[in-house]
Amino acid sequence: MPTALKLYLAGPEVFLPDARAILDAKAALTRAHGFEAICPGDLAIPPAPTKHQFGLNISEVDEGFMNRADGVIANLTPFRGIAADPGTVFELGYMCGAGKLVACYTNVADSHFKRSADFYAGDIHIAEDGRKRASDGTMLEDFEMIENLMLHGGVERRGGPVAVHAAEADRLWTDLTAFEQCLKTLAERR
Amino acid sequence: MPTALKLYLAGPEVFLPDARAILDAKAALTRAHGFEAICPGDLAIPPAPTKHQFGLNISEVDEGFMNRADGVIANLTPFRGIAADPGTVFELGYMCGAGKLVACYTNVADSHFKRSADFYAGDIHIAEDGRKRASDGTMLEDFEMIENLMLHGGVERRGGPVAVHAAEADRLWTDLTAFEQCLKTLAERR
Repeated sequence: MPTALKLYLAGPEVFLPDARAILDAKAALTRAHGFEAICPGDLAIPPAPTKHQFGLNISEVDEGFMNRADGVIANLTPFRGIAADPGTVFELGYMCGAGKLVACYTNVADSHFKRSADFYAGDIHIAEDGRKRASDGTMLEDFEMIENLMLHGGVERRGGPVAVHAAEADRLWTDLTAFEQCLKTLAERR
Repeated sequence: MPTALKLYLAGPEVFLPDARAILDAKAALTRAHGFEAICPGDLAIPPAPTKHQFGLNISEVDEGFMNRADGVIANLTPFRGIAADPGTVFELGYMCGAGKLVACYTNVADSHFKRSADFYAGDIHIAEDGRKRASDGTMLEDFEMIENLMLHGGVERRGGPVAVHAAEADRLWTDLTAFEQCLKTLAERR
């Protein structure tokens, strides 16, 4: 029997009050689909004399986890605004740059364009250059993608799943439907 | 004379109404410091039958630019919210994962913690677990960093500059002080 592929489970769950329970549930589901799960986290972070150094230590530990992993499933559900958590986005980019397996999902069905337009309360116009622009003149990407094209495109162009599921508001972080869709797709390709 | 190192200039400038002028100014400054500049952009993107495919084509072209580059300078100035542009964050992660030279800067001096606290209108408390948490229970990183620790830590741990400059509001995207600081630091290390 071949060694199970190791998947790094990137997402803003680490910031939630019930982080441990959600990460444990994601890890269990990952193993149920025949993969090994590697969760980000602050377990076993070397103590540090300053909080800044402690932050650097977490960065080092989590990068080490990614280096050990064969791939990533990134939770791109918007966090504290209209976009995915920057730490998760960095990790997705990191794994693309390192040539690993990539998958991503979101529990919000609205497109990147819809959420960007909402940021401007829908005040979007077609500018003289033919582009969709906001009241501040900035251009809006409208490519039927769940996030900025570098993220969605980076995963799709590598053949990875981009799963979308409209979770109920009170299950935004606990609904694992789209996450499991990623696992199923990766398992089929194995 | 050695070949000039090629730097990819990542940032949300591509969305601005005067994108071309700002990118040209950044490229000129990059060359003045002895580097070759590679700007992201939608020049020479292969036409596509659908807008989704056009988005994928831009992703492919920009990844190709990054693959050709020796390093990246990422503009992490907050864009449409409290965090850096996700496309730029992906690119910074990509270059870290690919083992390239990395540098980043921001034109907003507020820390990641300050901006996150502002998102909750300052309603932050110390929870039972000793962490700083918001009204929704989510934890706030407080590591004296300009962004999520994976970004700031990823650059600092690689010895890259993390430049901060408080630009005037009306020069948020045109003030190149912090950008030039990155160029100077990279040039000294060459």
